[in-house]
Amino acid sequence: MIDAPRPAAGELLFPLSPNHCFGCGPDHPSGLRVRFFRESEGVRTEVTVGVAHQGPPGVVHGGIQAVILDEACCAAAFFTRDTFVVTGELSLRYRQPCPVDRPLVVRAAVVADEERYFVVRGELCVAGTNDLLTVGEGKFHPDRSRSIG
Amino acid sequence: MIDAPRPAAGELLFPLSPNHCFGCGPDHPSGLRVRFFRESEGVRTEVTVGVAHQGPPGVVHGGIQAVILDEACCAAAFFTRDTFVVTGELSLRYRQPCPVDRPLVVRAAVVADEERYFVVRGELCVAGTNDLLTVGEGKFHPDRSRSIG
Repeated sequence: MIDAPRPAAGELLFPLSPNHCFGCGPDHPSGLRVRFFRESEGVRTEVTVGVAHQGPPGVVHGGIQAVILDEACCAAAFFTRDTFVVTGELSLRYRQPCPVDRPLVVRAAVVADEERYFVVRGELCVAGTNDLLTVGEGKFHPDRSRSIG
Repeated sequence: MIDAPRPAAGELLFPLSPNHCFGCGPDHPSGLRVRFFRESEGVRTEVTVGVAHQGPPGVVHGGIQAVILDEACCAAAFFTRDTFVVTGELSLRYRQPCPVDRPLVVRAAVVADEERYFVVRGELCVAGTNDLLTVGEGKFHPDRSRSIG
């Protein structure tokens, strides 16, 4: 068990307490703890993934990349459209291998507001580069079972 | 650290030793250890996911479902087409929430043999039901950097 880190300056948190989500939960002892920051039209997420979550040696498992992109897209909807969402569809394009043990950034934003869902797109890079590794885009539905507290 | 379970009767293993993959590695101390079995035209995978890998309370994180579906699709290609593959694209449709702590089954099979990739489709259900929770389909490219040992 590791103590949850303190929020960084400007860090956005979902208003959930406790939050044991594997992707973003500050209260999860061994989750990814993806962190969110507001940026331009959407959000930026930051995370470093260790070898415990690799697929092939040295490469972040494609499904773990899906966790990160899903988190980023849900956060983009929440922090720019003020609603929790559930993921209806998510399509991933893996362009280059994603390395473990390096800081990663996903930038995500709502790209279309449809009647029943948002289309949200996220792009994953190694931090400090514009070298696109993986792209995710999907349909995210407002979640009427959860409201902002 | 938990000892790796012995292979079950009929269980298929990737010829990788050690295999520390988060999804399927028998040598990973805390990974999902998805297990593969040959079935009809493809493979069946079996796994139970605990609360450590939930997104919302009680629901397997969508990205963890992507891990399972990706594993199933790669295994379907490997065990029916005799080649390791890398995931080029994976599209997921989340139809119903996927529960934690219940045995899950994915059935996956190659649905098209294209010149440069296989199209593979997988369907995730709670074991013993035909109640479709999540569908994954994608393009999987033969991996020339790894050969069957």
